[in-house]
Amino acid sequence: MPTIKRIDHIAIVVDDIPGALTFWRDALGLDLTHVEDVPDQESVVAFLPTGQGEIELVKPTTKTSGVARYLQKRGPGMHHICLEVDDIELQIARLKEHGVQLINETPTLGTGGKKIAFIHPKSTQGVLVELYELTPSEFEIRLRRARTLADRVMMQGQMAASATMAFLRSLRPGNGGPDGEEKETA
Amino acid sequence: MPTIKRIDHIAIVVDDIPGALTFWRDALGLDLTHVEDVPDQESVVAFLPTGQGEIELVKPTTKTSGVARYLQKRGPGMHHICLEVDDIELQIARLKEHGVQLINETPTLGTGGKKIAFIHPKSTQGVLVELYELTPSEFEIRLRRARTLADRVMMQGQMAASATMAFLRSLRPGNGGPDGEEKETA
Repeated sequence: MPTIKRIDHIAIVVDDIPGALTFWRDALGLDLTHVEDVPDQESVVAFLPTGQGEIELVKPTTKTSGVARYLQKRGPGMHHICLEVDDIELQIARLKEHGVQLINETPTLGTGGKKIAFIHPKSTQGVLVELYELTPSEFEIRLRRARTLADRVMMQGQMAASATMAFLRSLRPGNGGPDGEEKETA
Repeated sequence: MPTIKRIDHIAIVVDDIPGALTFWRDALGLDLTHVEDVPDQESVVAFLPTGQGEIELVKPTTKTSGVARYLQKRGPGMHHICLEVDDIELQIARLKEHGVQLINETPTLGTGGKKIAFIHPKSTQGVLVELYELTPSEFEIRLRRARTLADRVMMQGQMAASATMAFLRSLRPGNGGPDGEEKETA
């Protein structure tokens, strides 16, 4: 059984990235990691992660792409949502079995070599849904980040343990700390 | 500094919950935790969590609510996104400082006593954004759920350990299992 792991990102189509950033970055306080030109998608994309899930601001760079036509027709707003799956081929097979209309019947390769496929809004009650499978290379990047974080937490944990031990030693009878009660609960 | 913690949910307005579930639950494979009548919002809501972030299918139950008018005007599709914040009052103050147009200038109480406020799409490039602060009571509900899950995992872990021990005992010389190699690696 394929599994939907999480909401990876929400893509918002905008006509002005700096203008959109005055809300999403400056007022709301999200971090902007980078702005990237994505010629394959005829767009510029600004990436603003939250603790879980990312906001992506997408500005079309041509007039002919799907996202450009969406902007012309409906104005700025939510464009699609992206869900991370553990096995995109299995997920696509499952969707086909259920008669779901796909935009990509086989996964295409996105930036960073990740595998992606879009589901047609006709099958989802009006929502353009992107599926995305984490590739090993991107997985390794995340693993490295997690290890750096774990190292930092470990170091802070050791510092906290040392401080706690020093404090506990200071409580020992003869060190000027209380005894009695401490002994009974020890 | 207030912090945006995560994407809590994406709300999708639909005209037919069972119809929408044939995609979101049956084809995509998301779990449906429950369907809830929310008279305050003049809606019925179906909740489908992923590992991180939830999909909510919202069907208006009147013709006069904001969500009903949205559905009449634009058809089914994404309605709003909800971001969890650590301090909603601080976040609202910060947004006001930046001249952001709010629908709720002070937080309102949602289901389960959580504090919520909506930001007007005029200030966000067309996206209706809900902010939401986890209240202690809801935090406790999540904690209880996590404990139940932890108990279940512990029990399964103990069963797996027992089974593994039984299997390892069966490998001992004299029990009819292989020896030699097993001894060297033990």
